[in-house]
Amino acid sequence: MDETHGLVMIHTGDGKGKSTAAFGLALRAYGAGLNVLILQFIKGGKISGELHALKALEKISAENKIEVRQCGLGFIDKKNFQAHVDAAQVALEIARAEILSERWDLIILDEIIYSVKFGLLDAEKILELIKIRPPQLHLLLTGRDAPKILIDAADLVTEMKLVKHPFQVGIRAQRGIEF
Amino acid sequence: MDETHGLVMIHTGDGKGKSTAAFGLALRAYGAGLNVLILQFIKGGKISGELHALKALEKISAENKIEVRQCGLGFIDKKNFQAHVDAAQVALEIARAEILSERWDLIILDEIIYSVKFGLLDAEKILELIKIRPPQLHLLLTGRDAPKILIDAADLVTEMKLVKHPFQVGIRAQRGIEF
Repeated sequence: MDETHGLVMIHTGDGKGKSTAAFGLALRAYGAGLNVLILQFIKGGKISGELHALKALEKISAENKIEVRQCGLGFIDKKNFQAHVDAAQVALEIARAEILSERWDLIILDEIIYSVKFGLLDAEKILELIKIRPPQLHLLLTGRDAPKILIDAADLVTEMKLVKHPFQVGIRAQRGIEF
Repeated sequence: MDETHGLVMIHTGDGKGKSTAAFGLALRAYGAGLNVLILQFIKGGKISGELHALKALEKISAENKIEVRQCGLGFIDKKNFQAHVDAAQVALEIARAEILSERWDLIILDEIIYSVKFGLLDAEKILELIKIRPPQLHLLLTGRDAPKILIDAADLVTEMKLVKHPFQVGIRAQRGIEF
């Protein structure tokens, strides 16, 4: 009996750590020999610290791979809203193709739930991705305010809850830590 | 004006992702050029996926460094309780020395809060570490049931809350994902 059962995971909530824990999971999975793809739905352009480090990891192993692709246009503004809608559509198509490709053991759709929250994508489209996935593929979705139809479809849901934040006491966001 | 303000951070709660997000933060910080030390207070012996990947990262950069040290003895059993108490004491001393060394920008004391929960360390000893740190050092503590005196001393506290877990529906823990 094959014990691999693809988990559908969600990181949601108003706290820090949704994407950070996703990157940590990518690190664990890659270190354990899995093939890992991270598609970033909102972020684009800027190379963050974690991306920089993961790009270095991409080159290490001959046996398995880790890959990060930025599909977003960054901060969502009303002026370029249609461009963000189009980018989300393209990202969705890429996600669908990669999910069906059987090249990956874990696919992380980072911030895809924000695409729903901000009206770029329908939650039903994301539910479709969950339904078409090969049964052994692990899928992780991140973003605030996960809609109920996605929660219902997930195996493992973690809410990152803000208990206390330094902005509340007037400390500036710290490079390398908070961004 | 120097804008670096060392943050004291805590990942707590009954959900997944406390240590995983810590490793993700380590990745981000290292990728952003910070020097990062991870001391594991409970884990020992077994090389997990994330440790394996971070060990590969240790070799990449000539400019900054990332280092992981396992100071624990693994799963805490009653039979070897005193050995665990001793190991926690040693880990505490290592943490104190490294905090004062000024070699690091971020020190992660992974699972140190479990040491309190399981009676290996007093919370006051951990509070002392927070108090003696150089003002620019970022410190991250992880573990379930963080005591109030540590929450009060922290700048940024995130609770990882379990919303739904596959064990609840009888799916076995998945290698590379959950361990």
